[in-house]
Amino acid sequence: MPLLNETARGVYVIAVTPFTDDGALDLASVPTLVDFYLDSGADGLTLLGVLGEAPKLTADESLQFVRAVTAAVAARVPIIVGVSSPGLAALGQLAREAMAAGAAGVMVAPPHTLRTDDQIVDYFRLVGDVLGDIPFALQDHPQSTGVQMSLPVLLRILKAVPNCVMVKHEDWPGLNKIAGLRAASARGEVRRVSILGGNGALFLPEELERGSDGAMTGFAYPEMMVGVCRAHQEGALREMCDLFDAYLPLARYEQQPGIGLALRKHILAQRGAIASAALRQPGPKLSAADLADVARLTERQTQRLKELT
Amino acid sequence: MPLLNETARGVYVIAVTPFTDDGALDLASVPTLVDFYLDSGADGLTLLGVLGEAPKLTADESLQFVRAVTAAVAARVPIIVGVSSPGLAALGQLAREAMAAGAAGVMVAPPHTLRTDDQIVDYFRLVGDVLGDIPFALQDHPQSTGVQMSLPVLLRILKAVPNCVMVKHEDWPGLNKIAGLRAASARGEVRRVSILGGNGALFLPEELERGSDGAMTGFAYPEMMVGVCRAHQEGALREMCDLFDAYLPLARYEQQPGIGLALRKHILAQRGAIASAALRQPGPKLSAADLADVARLTERQTQRLKELT
Amino acid sequence: MPLLNETARGVYVIAVTPFTDDGALDLASVPTLVDFYLDSGADGLTLLGVLGEAPKLTADESLQFVRAVTAAVAARVPIIVGVSSPGLAALGQLAREAMAAGAAGVMVAPPHTLRTDDQIVDYFRLVGDVLGDIPFALQDHPQSTGVQMSLPVLLRILKAVPNCVMVKHEDWPGLNKIAGLRAASARGEVRRVSILGGNGALFLPEELERGSDGAMTGFAYPEMMVGVCRAHQEGALREMCDLFDAYLPLARYEQQPGIGLALRKHILAQRGAIASAALRQPGPKLSAADLADVARLTERQTQRLKELT
Amino acid sequence: MPLLNETARGVYVIAVTPFTDDGALDLASVPTLVDFYLDSGADGLTLLGVLGEAPKLTADESLQFVRAVTAAVAARVPIIVGVSSPGLAALGQLAREAMAAGAAGVMVAPPHTLRTDDQIVDYFRLVGDVLGDIPFALQDHPQSTGVQMSLPVLLRILKAVPNCVMVKHEDWPGLNKIAGLRAASARGEVRRVSILGGNGALFLPEELERGSDGAMTGFAYPEMMVGVCRAHQEGALREMCDLFDAYLPLARYEQQPGIGLALRKHILAQRGAIASAALRQPGPKLSAADLADVARLTERQTQRLKELT
Repeated sequence: MPLLNETARGVYVIAVTPFTDDGALDLASVPTLVDFYLDSGADGLTLLGVLGEAPKLTADESLQFVRAVTAAVAARVPIIVGVSSPGLAALGQLAREAMAAGAAGVMVAPPHTLRTDDQIVDYFRLVGDVLGDIPFALQDHPQSTGVQMSLPVLLRILKAVPNCVMVKHEDWPGLNKIAGLRAASARGEVRRVSILGGNGALFLPEELERGSDGAMTGFAYPEMMVGVCRAHQEGALREMCDLFDAYLPLARYEQQPGIGLALRKHILAQRGAIASAALRQPGPKLSAADLADVARLTERQTQRLKELT
Repeated sequence: MPLLNETARGVYVIAVTPFTDDGALDLASVPTLVDFYLDSGADGLTLLGVLGEAPKLTADESLQFVRAVTAAVAARVPIIVGVSSPGLAALGQLAREAMAAGAAGVMVAPPHTLRTDDQIVDYFRLVGDVLGDIPFALQDHPQSTGVQMSLPVLLRILKAVPNCVMVKHEDWPGLNKIAGLRAASARGEVRRVSILGGNGALFLPEELERGSDGAMTGFAYPEMMVGVCRAHQEGALREMCDLFDAYLPLARYEQQPGIGLALRKHILAQRGAIASAALRQPGPKLSAADLADVARLTERQTQRLKELT
Repeated sequence: MPLLNETARGVYVIAVTPFTDDGALDLASVPTLVDFYLDSGADGLTLLGVLGEAPKLTADESLQFVRAVTAAVAARVPIIVGVSSPGLAALGQLAREAMAAGAAGVMVAPPHTLRTDDQIVDYFRLVGDVLGDIPFALQDHPQSTGVQMSLPVLLRILKAVPNCVMVKHEDWPGLNKIAGLRAASARGEVRRVSILGGNGALFLPEELERGSDGAMTGFAYPEMMVGVCRAHQEGALREMCDLFDAYLPLARYEQQPGIGLALRKHILAQRGAIASAALRQPGPKLSAADLADVARLTERQTQRLKELT
Repeated sequence: MPLLNETARGVYVIAVTPFTDDGALDLASVPTLVDFYLDSGADGLTLLGVLGEAPKLTADESLQFVRAVTAAVAARVPIIVGVSSPGLAALGQLAREAMAAGAAGVMVAPPHTLRTDDQIVDYFRLVGDVLGDIPFALQDHPQSTGVQMSLPVLLRILKAVPNCVMVKHEDWPGLNKIAGLRAASARGEVRRVSILGGNGALFLPEELERGSDGAMTGFAYPEMMVGVCRAHQEGALREMCDLFDAYLPLARYEQQPGIGLALRKHILAQRGAIASAALRQPGPKLSAADLADVARLTERQTQRLKELT
């Protein structure tokens, strides 16, 4: 498998980690899940993100899951593995194991304790050293990490850390940061990196317009993201927006903090991608009213998509 | 003017505070702004919220603005005044002045330093004492305050603090908290309070379904909120959702942290509600691309609304 | 009164704000409090700091207190007034009023929402603009503000904001930051500023050794701080440490988060500086055991001081 | 080895984790470190605390270190192993491995994301379930975790979670919380638990007076903590305070956030307990002035101890 590099584009779906109803890792669901994502048109997969319940796995389980997915994918698309960890030793170990298992690169979010610009840059410098020749995506997601990276900080990191080849950008949505990063590359100030947007794809059309290369997030209808990226590439902006708008009511609902992942797994289970919608503890329970909302939103979505064709 | 009470319902628009281009309080825009909101169908106005740039005003300016608005409203609808402050003395003073100027009640968000349940309950107990017979809305908005109030804490506050007559609920969106609050009242465990939803109305249909009484937020097209509430009351759920979905792409865009208020003021200025879109310093600047996004989204919104009629 | 400038040195005591038992501003205690501080050898006074319960005052009360203190001080020592506020308009207003009342300068801590280096520098740039020709001390106290300022950020501020003439340094204790600031001035990279240490003087000897100019904090025995600064200036390092160590057990005890200010006011009331130890609500209550600890520590302190003479 | 229970008392030293200069786990230093602590009079050891650099170890290294220490201790004193982790699966795995290696119990600090009372209680309920019959110490250290546990919350946890047998109390210092916990047991409201104080022993005398059973912290002169606890038990309060005060200047200096652990390791290396003072990356570097401070403080400490005998 070729290594992840700055030309990556399209839709890297953040994969959920399937569990059985009693909380065990559900490796049996991996092939259906992988097929579901690839049949949706995914250009890559990202494992063990925050919304992959990564911190709930033991080191051994993380590796088992990575191996199961790489086996099921069978090199059809590149795989990125989230390796964020409170410590660099564990980060480096999982990264090396993931690459040995066939990953194309890894992803790193900063620990929540970082505050100043220098602390952030120094941290990613150390990450770059620990990873050596493993390429990585930097995850810029202040809502979950509490770490705010300004554009100047991102530029400093890109200059200092050559194996940072991608920014998973989800600074809610920080559209002007995407544009600023692209402008800095256009001025020759910094090399180009791949930029993929997150946040449940809630700003995907605008992100693409500002220069992003696609999406890296886990919305339970990846075909929306694939369709939006394709329409954008073809310059079919009206179709892009029509498609996006049709899915937006549900995408918005799925992006609720707290219960978002439970909603996503519920939909994925309904769509046959995984056997159980269970989250490993601790995790929220959905109410009957939550499920009714999903049913109503899904039905309206289907209806709206029909109107568009 | 009757005092605010637990029967309040409908749309209380969070009013922006208009400034001139050089940052002075723009009292000349108050009549147009008030008429804009009331012509949109607002059932009430809320002044000096976080998105009213309240902390940027001096104590004198706050009072001037309250007086200008109450004069312009001329008792057509009730007015709620945000009086959140790091200290209770300033909170009480502004509350008394606002009521003297004609407000129907006040609104209080907790200071960011509160953490434990007891700290939160004790704080609102003190607020209740300081306010005396002034009714108030409790603002539950963890994204801006950092204070997380569980349902049990809300119930304890409602039991302990009789002048808390409304919850401005925007725990992103905490739909199950709304339902839990209503269920506790249905069980006779706690008196009924008015519940109005915030968050730019991004979850208004679902909030109404769970038992909220309406919206208290500042989306620049208040007619959407008015229409959604009306449709809900009439049981026209399909029309409610159609209307909501038509505005959702822009509502989502306007709700971006950081630049959201600048976007809102830009639209309000374009719609003639205020003379200048300026924020008082410190505040973000919109880029040309931001403005282009708004133009595109607004145009599509107009188009979609036409299709619906 | 001459304006505050970079040559300020010695002990600027952070004055408590006296209240009566029922929470009213106790202006009657101002003369005794001022005399207590000046008789202890204070070189200056700082009003309305965080531990002066500043946020609990209304704008009017703040000004009344400033005027009462400046009248009692009668130009014997310079006065610095804390003007930190969520908004720049209120900050500027209080600053101008304080200067009109006779203050030598003001003090500003950053709002808790600042995170990135640029946000911090931009904020103090705006503060500098708003204050115009009023000199100010920058308060670097991450424990209370949550804002972490690296040495490079401090240097950027000093270069960009000419009326910042003092750093109240209490980055627990950030001794190497003090040394770094002095080294930058020695290299000619940045102008010299006055540096005064805070944190209840718990690191005063070490701060002086690294280049600070004295203390700005409110330990209830200001004579310790005065004696330590004097001994340091005379090169009597052993005497400096002996004196410091004698007070350290109590200074440590008074510096407890949560109840520290209540302890301090209790001691000040016992020493006759203020009429009541009351804090304005909300504030903690001391237990009998707390008071017994203070009594024991004070007695041992007196004993130890006797042994030293 | 008997399991940890509520009768634990005395000094449980938080052991550092030794590294070589190039950052490898230094298992060769384990025997000297263990002997150093036990020769100082330690009643127990605690491994892999926050100041044991636990998060910097891989899962394998953590287990290696636990095994090396249990082998060196050879059942002379009980060992507690910190197992805090972002996820319960990793927490449970390390706990079971540690117990299999000979630990007496484990220690758990809450993840930084917890806010409300219910979230905290629910978390420790899950921890209790995951640990099964393994007894554990709850670490109450808001300065590092950001989680504030009120006394009512502690009581709820003790009622709901039977295998929580100890509270490592370091709520800076929360003396009244210790007293409140003891009073609740005296009233028969909750079973007794062991309470050990942390915070570098900066409040050890007062904690003992309020009812704590000793200290669990890592001050580089454990003999101070041992002597203070012994004197307290013998009712020799004056000797207790004299001894404590002699060490306080250094204990205060060692407790500096940021560089505290580096200072501690420097002293331990000087005292021959470990071969290298190195911290694993990322970690601060001490300056020459820092080292000079330690030298001066140590010398004065030696001198003062001589005066006392």
